[in-house]
Amino acid sequence: MKTIGSRHNPLFKRIRDAIRDHGSELVLEGPKQIRDALAAGWTPIATITRGASDDFPDAIAFEAKAFDALADTRTSQGVLAIFTRPQFDASVLFARRDSIIVALDGVQDPGNVGTIVRLAAAFDAAGVALLPGCADPFGRKALRASAGAALNVAFANVTARELLDSALPLYAADGNGEAIDPPTREAILIFGNEGSGVSDELRTHATPIAIATSGRVESLNVAASAAILLSRGFATRH
Amino acid sequence: MKTIGSRHNPLFKRIRDAIRDHGSELVLEGPKQIRDALAAGWTPIATITRGASDDFPDAIAFEAKAFDALADTRTSQGVLAIFTRPQFDASVLFARRDSIIVALDGVQDPGNVGTIVRLAAAFDAAGVALLPGCADPFGRKALRASAGAALNVAFANVTARELLDSALPLYAADGNGEAIDPPTREAILIFGNEGSGVSDELRTHATPIAIATSGRVESLNVAASAAILLSRGFATRH
Repeated sequence: MKTIGSRHNPLFKRIRDAIRDHGSELVLEGPKQIRDALAAGWTPIATITRGASDDFPDAIAFEAKAFDALADTRTSQGVLAIFTRPQFDASVLFARRDSIIVALDGVQDPGNVGTIVRLAAAFDAAGVALLPGCADPFGRKALRASAGAALNVAFANVTARELLDSALPLYAADGNGEAIDPPTREAILIFGNEGSGVSDELRTHATPIAIATSGRVESLNVAASAAILLSRGFATRH
Repeated sequence: MKTIGSRHNPLFKRIRDAIRDHGSELVLEGPKQIRDALAAGWTPIATITRGASDDFPDAIAFEAKAFDALADTRTSQGVLAIFTRPQFDASVLFARRDSIIVALDGVQDPGNVGTIVRLAAAFDAAGVALLPGCADPFGRKALRASAGAALNVAFANVTARELLDSALPLYAADGNGEAIDPPTREAILIFGNEGSGVSDELRTHATPIAIATSGRVESLNVAASAAILLSRGFATRH
């Protein structure tokens, strides 16, 4: 079997673009992530290995140098797979009425996005709606922070307008709000940008929810706020 | 006034060692951190600036090259200060009976340590007890994650033996426990290592507390667990 070594190879370029562009295709790295994706019913467009691999006999072998140009060797442990990015229509998320939808509005830090995705799975959110300006939940850092939970969560790219038109009540994590109980179902709970919070367009239509603190800090980290509000909503629901 | 340019200068070496060794002295970077420390009553051993600075007229000026060898220019914004590390005796923490003590047992990731320090301040813990193997809460990454809250928290380095001898009841965040209410006062709540959890020596003497989840994830991140349990204890107390 032929080993691919050229950076002009179409598959090489397709994988490189998927990693770089965060577009309609995404790349998972390492045997655990790939096996978890297969177990979740995903079908790879292609699996590639660093040289031939007995563990992935059907994979396409790349020369080490070409493989290493695509992936971090330690993270990938010699195997990558490219997939079509799973994308739900926002209406699919909105249709699930036994839980809440988590919306992220310009959450830029991949670690925060990954942590909130993990929390959305842990506390059984209907899905995660991504407004513009968020880090890619399938980027390398976000996937690491999500500990694989991204494979187990429904995502939809949405606009503020779509959330406003959903007819679901909007809530926003907002330190200026009252410390009311978070929603438990049939609602959208929005977490905003690390610095500027939820954008004005949504904020003016959302009920702000604060978290009671001692006042010894100015604010909570957005992922910590998500942990507190999502766990509280889940506990009330169950 | 003379500007220091030599790496053999005793103050240069002292600052370099403090950054590297995480010992009895620590270095804060940037005008905000330093002003917050002054506001919290800390007294610097020395403040140094990158060249002369009108903002810190009493500081010792270092040549740019020597300054840059010590600090990240962007983080420091041209000013550093070295302080004696504030250290409380464990007994001081144990004596405060209107809240709980947060104990960290081998929490290695500086981002997790910083986030938990911020939560300890937010939810008014009596202090943070550091068992061996934790990241330094005054390291650069941890300080960034704590958003300055480290200046506002009492720390003590402790051994497992000291916790066991404190006569305070021990609780441990532990996915294998029951989802019971977290302690609200006169107790020690232990968070363990990211991979292996709380060490056996403490685990066998602690009441395990789990957090109810959907089962769609294997575990929660330690900082997310801290957010949930500390906020819940605080809410019950107030």
